[in-house]
Amino acid sequence: MRATLHQLEQTIAQRRSADPSQSYVAKLTSRGRGKIAQKVGEEAVETVIAALAGDRAETVGESADLLFHLLVLLADCGISLDSVLDELDRREGLSGLTEKAARREQM
Amino acid sequence: MRATLHQLEQTIAQRRSADPSQSYVAKLTSRGRGKIAQKVGEEAVETVIAALAGDRAETVGESADLLFHLLVLLADCGISLDSVLDELDRREGLSGLTEKAARREQM
Amino acid sequence: MRATLHQLEQTIAQRRSADPSQSYVAKLTSRGRGKIAQKVGEEAVETVIAALAGDRAETVGESADLLFHLLVLLADCGISLDSVLDELDRREGLSGLTEKAARREQM
Amino acid sequence: MRATLHQLEQTIAQRRSADPSQSYVAKLTSRGRGKIAQKVGEEAVETVIAALAGDRAETVGESADLLFHLLVLLADCGISLDSVLDELDRREGLSGLTEKAARREQM
Repeated sequence: MRATLHQLEQTIAQRRSADPSQSYVAKLTSRGRGKIAQKVGEEAVETVIAALAGDRAETVGESADLLFHLLVLLADCGISLDSVLDELDRREGLSGLTEKAARREQM
Repeated sequence: MRATLHQLEQTIAQRRSADPSQSYVAKLTSRGRGKIAQKVGEEAVETVIAALAGDRAETVGESADLLFHLLVLLADCGISLDSVLDELDRREGLSGLTEKAARREQM
Repeated sequence: MRATLHQLEQTIAQRRSADPSQSYVAKLTSRGRGKIAQKVGEEAVETVIAALAGDRAETVGESADLLFHLLVLLADCGISLDSVLDELDRREGLSGLTEKAARREQM
Repeated sequence: MRATLHQLEQTIAQRRSADPSQSYVAKLTSRGRGKIAQKVGEEAVETVIAALAGDRAETVGESADLLFHLLVLLADCGISLDSVLDELDRREGLSGLTEKAARREQM
């Protein structure tokens, strides 16, 4: 059965308090939020470049890295994945005819 | 009931072929992959800045924007969310004692 | 005669204290370092995308935007352009045979 | 005497054709424009994070890295530093009363 982002969120929560010499999550977390945020930014750049290069496998891998590090960052901020999904839900509730107006300012 | 990323993926797939004057997804898609990728990069930068500022609501909102635009980019590349979750699954299968070694090169 | 980055640095220093309704630099500065930093990140993403698209005019324009906003950010941090040039100078002094070793960790 | 960006531009132009085992510029260039662009994006993210952390020395160092890699990217695109400075010059010629209008769309 496929892992879900919620399972990954739980795994990350457990590993945050693990031995930094045994866990990447614990090690990255011990280096501070700046380092975690840096990884999110870097993985986003790599995702962008892979997508523009049309490299499918690389885009999958970098997107996975981006999601993973975003979850590590959210955990460090004490923000649950559900909070973010609720926000997406709230916005999609604005969907249909009003979608354009609601997002117009983003273009 | 909470929306899932899979539901959002389906919504995005439908909107890609909608009238660009009525749908943000259709409009952004019509501007090309470069513009979609640019939004992924920009939302990642905004997520990083919100997290470092310790602004919880902003971090939730920017993370939602980042996930949303990542899904639009994956759709444009013809990559399913499941492909990315499978990749995360594969990596987590490397977990436990080997996690550190497998990710060591990322630090 | 061509403007230099040092002249631009001086112009930015003067405009920081101008009326935000009359000056972009003053307005952006009034919104805080987070907003300035966000522009640096966004312009870098746009430079990357323009370069990968092989769009020469766009790459020139986005690189100009990136340099401009980097100077605004440095000004906000109280860091002179010369401090950055001195750092580049110091590194280039490591050049020649040792360049590879000195930068090896960056690859 | 302080090195200038123009001198750095010349050094980079020479090193592009050097032995990749001896020169970081040659090695990075041999890995393709995607890798160079990735470094520009990553150094921008690191500059943003250092500036927000208020870490002066780190901001100087990351800004130097950003400028260096931007020059490597411009060289790879066959764009001279002067083209970018001319573009900045052209925009500053729009300065004074019109600065706000000219940049309004960027906020």
